[in-house]
Amino acid sequence: MPHYKLTYFNVTGRIEPARVMFHYGGIPFEDVRIEHADWPSLKPTNSLWRTTILEIDGKKYTQGVSLSRYVANIVGLVGKTNEENLEIEIAVNIVSELLITAYEFHYEPNEEKKKQNLKKLNELMDKYLPVLDEAAKKNGGHLVTNRLTWADIFFVTSYEDIRHLLENKDIVKDFSGLQNLKKNVLSEKNIKQYIQSRPKLPTYKYDLRSEL
Amino acid sequence: MPHYKLTYFNVTGRIEPARVMFHYGGIPFEDVRIEHADWPSLKPTNSLWRTTILEIDGKKYTQGVSLSRYVANIVGLVGKTNEENLEIEIAVNIVSELLITAYEFHYEPNEEKKKQNLKKLNELMDKYLPVLDEAAKKNGGHLVTNRLTWADIFFVTSYEDIRHLLENKDIVKDFSGLQNLKKNVLSEKNIKQYIQSRPKLPTYKYDLRSEL
Repeated sequence: MPHYKLTYFNVTGRIEPARVMFHYGGIPFEDVRIEHADWPSLKPTNSLWRTTILEIDGKKYTQGVSLSRYVANIVGLVGKTNEENLEIEIAVNIVSELLITAYEFHYEPNEEKKKQNLKKLNELMDKYLPVLDEAAKKNGGHLVTNRLTWADIFFVTSYEDIRHLLENKDIVKDFSGLQNLKKNVLSEKNIKQYIQSRPKLPTYKYDLRSEL
Repeated sequence: MPHYKLTYFNVTGRIEPARVMFHYGGIPFEDVRIEHADWPSLKPTNSLWRTTILEIDGKKYTQGVSLSRYVANIVGLVGKTNEENLEIEIAVNIVSELLITAYEFHYEPNEEKKKQNLKKLNELMDKYLPVLDEAAKKNGGHLVTNRLTWADIFFVTSYEDIRHLLENKDIVKDFSGLQNLKKNVLSEKNIKQYIQSRPKLPTYKYDLRSEL
């Protein structure tokens, strides 16, 4: 098995699905959590690099969603057919859009723009959450097919992050299918164990640990 | 084989990689090109839908990049290992970022914002194009490994679109590796034949046909 080393800040965000899936699959990896002050000295000189880095036997790769898809393939959390994978990608894509929009809201310093960003986020949630909920109801608490895929994990880690970014607002409060999905993911033995034992997230307004 | 029906406007944009790859693989599909006025009546009621639609035996799927990845899997233009696929995704992701930023420039009505968007696009091109060019030089005119993958096709169709959006500016003029990549893609028999025979793009400032 290759040596995996994942480097990111001590936040969940774009890299948490990869961490969760490594644990789910029982794949050993170095879970390096750096301080923001360390980043400039660690940043690879190749200009493609974002703040997420996965090293595979020393070779560096980047991009949260791409890394998540990679780990999903390794641990068998992808679809069984091309069509299932297409459905997974569509789900991941819209959850990703929600997460990015929540970041844009949270980190916007200008009050007027912040309001606009919140409006946009609310519109997206009104549009997407019922569709995701419907899928979760149809598939027994999974977004695609009746079994766990990386779309479910991506949803739950994004849910945590969005809830933190929205001052602890629970975006699945009115959606029983999505609540069921969250339960399914968090009741996976390896995932539960990881969430219980992972480093505390000191800046977070919400932590999945409280659900266990 | 399933029945494939692809519906989009008569532009290249986000769906052209899927069209090109269906042709590359010799997979029959309905290539439906609609007028903008037709879209409201065709739009599925499910709120996830974008303007790109692929029907597989009547079931509807959406999202340009997700559909491209799907077709790439069908016609064998994906990587041979998880690591190759990760490299392909990283390349597609940054080309996609260039394309989206070019759209943001082209369609921005406000002159001041348009200037800012152009500045952002130029910065991204300065950052990404040399890295892509280096990869193409290393891999004999391919972005990942020494053979054709969907990253190459995604690059060439995006190149065409960006060139159109930038008033015919040739963004690979100074990059011999990327020029070589373009030649590799356009010299594929099925792709060449498709580009030669596809419907004219009346609004376009540039057409890949001129390269054949």
